[in-house]
Amino acid sequence: MQRYFLAGKFEEQATYKLTGDDFHHAAHVMRMKIGDKCFLTFEDEMAIVAEITEVLEAEINLKLVEKEETQKELPFNVTIACGYTKGDKLEWVAQKATELGMFELIGFPSKTSVVKWDEKKLTKKVPRFEKIVKEAAEQSHRQKVPGIQLLSHFNDFTKSLVNYDHILVAYEESAKSGETKSFVKSLQEVKTGESVIIIFGPEGGLSPQEIDIFSKEKAVICGLGPRILRAETAPLYALSAMSYQWELL
Amino acid sequence: MQRYFLAGKFEEQATYKLTGDDFHHAAHVMRMKIGDKCFLTFEDEMAIVAEITEVLEAEINLKLVEKEETQKELPFNVTIACGYTKGDKLEWVAQKATELGMFELIGFPSKTSVVKWDEKKLTKKVPRFEKIVKEAAEQSHRQKVPGIQLLSHFNDFTKSLVNYDHILVAYEESAKSGETKSFVKSLQEVKTGESVIIIFGPEGGLSPQEIDIFSKEKAVICGLGPRILRAETAPLYALSAMSYQWELL
Repeated sequence: MQRYFLAGKFEEQATYKLTGDDFHHAAHVMRMKIGDKCFLTFEDEMAIVAEITEVLEAEINLKLVEKEETQKELPFNVTIACGYTKGDKLEWVAQKATELGMFELIGFPSKTSVVKWDEKKLTKKVPRFEKIVKEAAEQSHRQKVPGIQLLSHFNDFTKSLVNYDHILVAYEESAKSGETKSFVKSLQEVKTGESVIIIFGPEGGLSPQEIDIFSKEKAVICGLGPRILRAETAPLYALSAMSYQWELL
Repeated sequence: MQRYFLAGKFEEQATYKLTGDDFHHAAHVMRMKIGDKCFLTFEDEMAIVAEITEVLEAEINLKLVEKEETQKELPFNVTIACGYTKGDKLEWVAQKATELGMFELIGFPSKTSVVKWDEKKLTKKVPRFEKIVKEAAEQSHRQKVPGIQLLSHFNDFTKSLVNYDHILVAYEESAKSGETKSFVKSLQEVKTGESVIIIFGPEGGLSPQEIDIFSKEKAVICGLGPRILRAETAPLYALSAMSYQWELL
């Protein structure tokens, strides 16, 4: 069943409306008709099953059928922070990490990042990323659309780290040296209401200086198993392992 | 450090040789010189650190420095079986699942597969897949290159299931109905020397008839958490969770 994200908090009301892109998708792509159902999800993560009562020129009207009870979000907010990578890899991480439950994506310029983006370019990129995560959130039946922050200064990123209860860093050298316990221990220590950020380097990896800076912010340096994962694969490993630890085990 | 896979089992000898594509990569892409080191990995999963002693017109000679002691392979052989998906998604799964430790990839025609490939087309595709997994295995420092089987008949696939000690099926409907324990229980039950196959549907998911057929082969039907993962994302979730359970926990 199709899922759409609506602006505002959930309120019980006689009619809900799909307009703009969502209207276009429902009416013209999915060709939904009166009597068809879909999920509507609101900014407070409330979701309902709604039934179409009217299809007009530029909007669809729906009525509440029932509230969705299942929890679809990871039990803790996990922010994925990635040093800027080449090509469209970060867009790809945005899509896949959304499916896997990420709360927010932060991009930052890492010392070894080959690409250099200025503020103007980054501001232009944000809407594209927002579209990617919205569509992935709809497809994967999330109750929340992840946030996007594309930072232009490394210092802005390090300053923001005080906002998180748990700071993890995925570090290739830890993987190579056979470190295996920090990641598990960190995941098992997260408590209700706490937030997690996990930091990944670009293709060239994080520099020892960056590792020092993160360590001063009390980051835990982790290995993610014995194989060397590409920059775009490591965040997916981390989120999958988090889901396994927190939702399945 | 670069890694190359050589044909044959490891034997102690005075000189090892890189030829063909590997020679080209080492000499012209990586521009390696006398005294540079790389890993050489053999078909019996033995790996050595080797040093270049000579760079000739069409081959590089190397000598043994030391044997690699670290285990880089998942402790159990995991075969990933995917119903044929659209576009290049299966190639992408081949690359990512190799990084994450897959033992073998099997493609099979599922009832809901949109693409239909005949035997001739599939035979042509195999070398391309073999190149993808070889390169990914080198990059992720694997000691084994995964195998590739692209089957043209669903029946050939079901007949092969007797070869595995544990048959798992990732099923969207199990995820939707909140089933969470079967996957964990299955992973925890795997014993030394046993093999695992995990089956994934194409975009349209596995059909109830297919689920019936797999169930008769004693497959365990599993949910992989509460979010709906795309066909190409689910195998990566499974392999990451397996690594977490078997290598980190």
